[in-house]
Amino acid sequence: MQASRFQPSPRCSLLHRYEEIRGTTLKLTEPFSAEDQMLQSMPDASPAKWHLAHTTWFFETFILAPHAGNYRPFDVRYKHLFNSYYKQLGSHPYRGSRGLMARPALEEVHAYRSWVDREMERYMEQDINGAARLVELGLNHEQQHQELILTDMKHALWSMPLRPEGRSRLRAVHDSGPLAWLKIEGGIYQVGYNGAGFAFDNEGPRHEVLLPPFQIASRQTTNREYLEFIEDEGYRRPELWLSDGWDSVCTHGWNAPLYWEKRDRKWCEFRFSGAEEIDLAAPVCHVSYYEADAFARWSGCRLPREEEWEIAAKSANSAESGGFLEDAEYHPRPGQTRGAQWFGNVWEWTASPYTPYPGFAPEEGVIGEYNGKFMCNQFVLRGGSCATPVSHIRPTYRNFFPPQARWQFMGIRLAK
Amino acid sequence: MQASRFQPSPRCSLLHRYEEIRGTTLKLTEPFSAEDQMLQSMPDASPAKWHLAHTTWFFETFILAPHAGNYRPFDVRYKHLFNSYYKQLGSHPYRGSRGLMARPALEEVHAYRSWVDREMERYMEQDINGAARLVELGLNHEQQHQELILTDMKHALWSMPLRPEGRSRLRAVHDSGPLAWLKIEGGIYQVGYNGAGFAFDNEGPRHEVLLPPFQIASRQTTNREYLEFIEDEGYRRPELWLSDGWDSVCTHGWNAPLYWEKRDRKWCEFRFSGAEEIDLAAPVCHVSYYEADAFARWSGCRLPREEEWEIAAKSANSAESGGFLEDAEYHPRPGQTRGAQWFGNVWEWTASPYTPYPGFAPEEGVIGEYNGKFMCNQFVLRGGSCATPVSHIRPTYRNFFPPQARWQFMGIRLAK
Amino acid sequence: MQASRFQPSPRCSLLHRYEEIRGTTLKLTEPFSAEDQMLQSMPDASPAKWHLAHTTWFFETFILAPHAGNYRPFDVRYKHLFNSYYKQLGSHPYRGSRGLMARPALEEVHAYRSWVDREMERYMEQDINGAARLVELGLNHEQQHQELILTDMKHALWSMPLRPEGRSRLRAVHDSGPLAWLKIEGGIYQVGYNGAGFAFDNEGPRHEVLLPPFQIASRQTTNREYLEFIEDEGYRRPELWLSDGWDSVCTHGWNAPLYWEKRDRKWCEFRFSGAEEIDLAAPVCHVSYYEADAFARWSGCRLPREEEWEIAAKSANSAESGGFLEDAEYHPRPGQTRGAQWFGNVWEWTASPYTPYPGFAPEEGVIGEYNGKFMCNQFVLRGGSCATPVSHIRPTYRNFFPPQARWQFMGIRLAK
Amino acid sequence: MQASRFQPSPRCSLLHRYEEIRGTTLKLTEPFSAEDQMLQSMPDASPAKWHLAHTTWFFETFILAPHAGNYRPFDVRYKHLFNSYYKQLGSHPYRGSRGLMARPALEEVHAYRSWVDREMERYMEQDINGAARLVELGLNHEQQHQELILTDMKHALWSMPLRPEGRSRLRAVHDSGPLAWLKIEGGIYQVGYNGAGFAFDNEGPRHEVLLPPFQIASRQTTNREYLEFIEDEGYRRPELWLSDGWDSVCTHGWNAPLYWEKRDRKWCEFRFSGAEEIDLAAPVCHVSYYEADAFARWSGCRLPREEEWEIAAKSANSAESGGFLEDAEYHPRPGQTRGAQWFGNVWEWTASPYTPYPGFAPEEGVIGEYNGKFMCNQFVLRGGSCATPVSHIRPTYRNFFPPQARWQFMGIRLAK
Repeated sequence: MQASRFQPSPRCSLLHRYEEIRGTTLKLTEPFSAEDQMLQSMPDASPAKWHLAHTTWFFETFILAPHAGNYRPFDVRYKHLFNSYYKQLGSHPYRGSRGLMARPALEEVHAYRSWVDREMERYMEQDINGAARLVELGLNHEQQHQELILTDMKHALWSMPLRPEGRSRLRAVHDSGPLAWLKIEGGIYQVGYNGAGFAFDNEGPRHEVLLPPFQIASRQTTNREYLEFIEDEGYRRPELWLSDGWDSVCTHGWNAPLYWEKRDRKWCEFRFSGAEEIDLAAPVCHVSYYEADAFARWSGCRLPREEEWEIAAKSANSAESGGFLEDAEYHPRPGQTRGAQWFGNVWEWTASPYTPYPGFAPEEGVIGEYNGKFMCNQFVLRGGSCATPVSHIRPTYRNFFPPQARWQFMGIRLAK
Repeated sequence: MQASRFQPSPRCSLLHRYEEIRGTTLKLTEPFSAEDQMLQSMPDASPAKWHLAHTTWFFETFILAPHAGNYRPFDVRYKHLFNSYYKQLGSHPYRGSRGLMARPALEEVHAYRSWVDREMERYMEQDINGAARLVELGLNHEQQHQELILTDMKHALWSMPLRPEGRSRLRAVHDSGPLAWLKIEGGIYQVGYNGAGFAFDNEGPRHEVLLPPFQIASRQTTNREYLEFIEDEGYRRPELWLSDGWDSVCTHGWNAPLYWEKRDRKWCEFRFSGAEEIDLAAPVCHVSYYEADAFARWSGCRLPREEEWEIAAKSANSAESGGFLEDAEYHPRPGQTRGAQWFGNVWEWTASPYTPYPGFAPEEGVIGEYNGKFMCNQFVLRGGSCATPVSHIRPTYRNFFPPQARWQFMGIRLAK
Repeated sequence: MQASRFQPSPRCSLLHRYEEIRGTTLKLTEPFSAEDQMLQSMPDASPAKWHLAHTTWFFETFILAPHAGNYRPFDVRYKHLFNSYYKQLGSHPYRGSRGLMARPALEEVHAYRSWVDREMERYMEQDINGAARLVELGLNHEQQHQELILTDMKHALWSMPLRPEGRSRLRAVHDSGPLAWLKIEGGIYQVGYNGAGFAFDNEGPRHEVLLPPFQIASRQTTNREYLEFIEDEGYRRPELWLSDGWDSVCTHGWNAPLYWEKRDRKWCEFRFSGAEEIDLAAPVCHVSYYEADAFARWSGCRLPREEEWEIAAKSANSAESGGFLEDAEYHPRPGQTRGAQWFGNVWEWTASPYTPYPGFAPEEGVIGEYNGKFMCNQFVLRGGSCATPVSHIRPTYRNFFPPQARWQFMGIRLAK
Repeated sequence: MQASRFQPSPRCSLLHRYEEIRGTTLKLTEPFSAEDQMLQSMPDASPAKWHLAHTTWFFETFILAPHAGNYRPFDVRYKHLFNSYYKQLGSHPYRGSRGLMARPALEEVHAYRSWVDREMERYMEQDINGAARLVELGLNHEQQHQELILTDMKHALWSMPLRPEGRSRLRAVHDSGPLAWLKIEGGIYQVGYNGAGFAFDNEGPRHEVLLPPFQIASRQTTNREYLEFIEDEGYRRPELWLSDGWDSVCTHGWNAPLYWEKRDRKWCEFRFSGAEEIDLAAPVCHVSYYEADAFARWSGCRLPREEEWEIAAKSANSAESGGFLEDAEYHPRPGQTRGAQWFGNVWEWTASPYTPYPGFAPEEGVIGEYNGKFMCNQFVLRGGSCATPVSHIRPTYRNFFPPQARWQFMGIRLAK
């Protein structure tokens, strides 16, 4: 986050956004029972109830406790219980044991949210100058967890032996026009966030990069294209894969994206609305970096570097409508064609390992653990997905996951 | 179960017992929320909700489906879902994944129980001759799971980061009189079940064994005695341990029974009612076979063989009141002194690996998987615990667990 | 070992046997290079070089160091290095790391053997009264390791990618006469060692057992019979297996005994002399307890208990020649028909878990760790194999291995 | 490798270098017995015997078999046996099982080397034009394995329970002058190989990068400096570490570099010549990327990116003597001060994940698996170590290891 340039939203607007975003989180979990919200289907995913509590803990820990006078915590044990990974705050529960938290009950967590919301509102009405930046951070944090609630709950539903359907109709929109290649000139470009609004510390500082000329696909890879790769024995040809990728294929027996399975010789995909036949025109989703990389190699192309992606996305977008930053209703967005599908459809794996930008400085204090310490063994994804809150999408946004991760809404865009 | 000798209870009595026992199961889970009942704190333990469903599945699968005309299953998917380990019925979910069953919801499982209870009652009113034996088996099965609900829920509460208290006051009664040694003559004895009521197949056939003379303790080992072992460095002296036992000590860092921890230099024990200071006069509980064996070696004694235990228990009991078989109210039984504490306090590890009696024949058909296939790598425990339904306790009853198990109510009686 | 009855061999004879047995060990390893002798193909097996050193360590540690005046150890570091599992002697290397002992070199280990042999001979010539019992124990220990050298080296050869052949022609003799059933009367029998020679502590004390009448096969199960089990889908029918056995089948993908593989639709077996077609008339070998048990169940029979085996073996043997105890040349014994194949062909799994006999007392002192601490999670095997030194075979001998072990020469005899 | 620019060495020179480099490999293994050369102390390391065979396999597979007319392989089974990871050649043994190769014997591997050397010499004398590039590749490959022989053997010696000493005196030279900061101007620079000699494919293509101004340390971090980090609780402060790094610290219990241990309150380091007290003036060695990164953070600095390193090294070197490319005697080089310690002392971790340069194209055919498929989850190291053959060191050379690796000669240079 670029503290020096940060221009806080006016107070009333911030309070309004606080209420709206916090409300959205609750709305996302509404369709699910207390039992559903307890499920942790794998160590990487967290129970929805935990997300509800942890995002609340964030405001309590980083704003109310240090800044709001006389704040009395809802339950002193939560300081430890809902700490995700901030080592400087002391110990925290092992991540894989979040599914053991039958207590506190969901209704207790709801009460915790109400308690903290009331205190936050009181605090924001009185004195916001000091902590406006932190409130923005908390809201962006909350939005990240909104997406995780959806991806983790999808994985939980899929992991249940009965494999029930959710009630959401969330999915990536299709955009099956012919693939064109955008040509970008070589030269020195600016990348990284430089605006007046909020951005994470890892999006800056803005800096110059020297790019050779390159071409990038006008749209994401479709299921139709990915099926050709599968049918061409893509999952059986080691020469197409990174060494670690091939190990993953062999160890896990991958033969298609996550959530795909063959029924009566037809590929189906598990969605929130249940298993459905593959939509050939939709972007391929739930592939790992290894699969994205192998597909690109098979295509005779490569994945774009994150700087290339950022330059191209801005270029494509300004050429069209430029409207990708305005707020909008949450998912689904059936008719969306905005931004030539660069934003809010599926995250796109880039070829860039997640590393600090030149001159990167993490936030000061404990909050500095937010981003910087994960800059290792992960790859950057760009663009946002159908599960990302629209107001959370930015062209400079750097999402990151380990190369074997598949449970996020992750897809492919080719470059060459 | 010795089919040839089995004398079914009169119909009305069986129906009455069905209702009573099924009702008791529900009552045991009542204090716990749907979230609590989803918890699987380790692969050995199962969620309470699963116990509720699986015991119901047992009646549906082995009685209603094959014997009740026109039975329509509550949900056809449950046949697979709540199968524990009967391989001949087809596949079943992996045991360690029972905690993933957010669906069906607890209320759905309650509806399942009601559905099956209604059908069972209708069936038992009409025609019971054929399946009375199976109903008895189902009720005994249900009682086993009543005990598991308590032991698994205790482990779940203890595993939760917040470590809440249950509301039960369940615990082993103390009996801290001086330890006496019962002397049993050598000779040929009869062991194994031979009565007219119900017994599991593994309790028979009755057969003769030749026992040398032996002595056996008049009561179970107390916490006071076990503490002496701890304070004499019992957990640090490999010469006291079986080789596999010592490996367990080192691997798991055992230095006291399960649920014990030191607070302010005092040993406390986690109970349903929370952590409390050790009751020195109470029997030691939650020890593995390895610990029982090491304690016995340290004492200059040994554990009794199961045949010795059975002969001694009958002998001690007939000498007193002989009343151990009559039905009684469920736990707790604060004033119990029946049977010199042989029954219903803590299970007692015997030195006997769990093997078939001479002439053992498992039940015919799928139900034969109930007991026989586990006769390997386990040890026999005798006597029943405070968590065992009183009507489920028999002197010939053979409980069995692997030697490293500690989460049942397991204790020690010495022999020499 | 029954010290009170033990009658030591005359001094010269003991010295003679010492030299002979120690020489045999070396002869067994002669065909193998220093590199071969370093191999540890799995944690259960040990390198041949380690066996050479550890057996030497045994004499050094239990006889020379405490009993021979002024003994100077060959290398003080060996006290720790070649300790197998005697916890009371202090720490020892992790078992699975024996393959890391490139040093000391094989020739160094040979020098160590010579050093200890010279000292042992000097000691035995002077004063043997005190330690004769320990020398006998050391020689029996050495003979156990002679067998392990063969079984571990067989596994090592088979594990090498090139799968070379050994030069030994070691194999179980065939005995494919028709299977008859020996009938043994019920009654009280004596089992356990009671002679004047050497026996391990676990073979005693002699005690009475009450056996019901039983029948036992006159010979071991043949490959022909076991093939019928395989072809009848024995490895695919869970109802034939113990629960833990079925887990092993599924985990390891077992579909035949160890060392079997199909080539051109014919079953071949890896032997010291290379892969050869199965000899249908030979006893089946390299099966686990689980497989022996499943085969017996499939046959409508069971495995004999160890007491049954001992009574039957003595009975069968005395009926024939009784000659099983005289010394004889080491393997192979192509024309052997002695003892109706009860001794020295393949070890036979019994249905008896390895537990102490009534009144069992381990050897005093550190040496008490030899046998007693392993009396858990193992099953008793009887009879000896083609890899067992003939002078090491006794009808009361109790070998023991975990139920999943297959790399020893292990086979099946049925009972009913 | 930049095929288009590659200028092969004259034939006689290439033959000469072949003989010299192949001879060096043998010389490196000479001090070690056949048993030593069989050791695989961890899956990452390989036995020296395997290195001898695999490097030979490389020439046989990629040159003799396809290019030398009528070549008859030494042993057809070696094609599979000594394949390291070339998937397109079919299967290969599991890496962690290289220690099982007791066969072929070391002398057999020596014969294999002689056989291939004779054939290679014959081939090179006749026709080298086609394969000169491949011979160069094979020689560079051989040199990489020369370094691995040393690092793997060091780890093997250290892993042996007796922890013997090697006879080599290999170590990084010290250079304890005061640390100065070289200032490099920002601007557009050329990086990557562009010369006429040999380079790996991953060193090119040469391309332009835009660098901001930076400073880089004039020498490597010393043990003295690293000790300050240790004494300042560096291994106990999670805020200094990457998240994955902190997990490694906790999982492995790291509290110092590999090979360090405290004796009598003094830090010692295991070297080929045995354990010795730390040389405070020598560069710290055997640290992981995680440790290098944490040390840099603690220092208020960072690690250099690989492009920064390359520019700075060239700059520093041309300022001094420029002599870093000439051939020289192998190690040790006690008096070396060349290149201000940039080359041939310890490898230096850079902050750059190992990724392809823009325009990177792997070698065509199977040999393309050499480098490209590993461009994931690793970090680039620069400069070469005291174990690197001098003629193998280049300023553009990109070594790479996973961030947790420590057994190579790996150290630190700071930047800011």
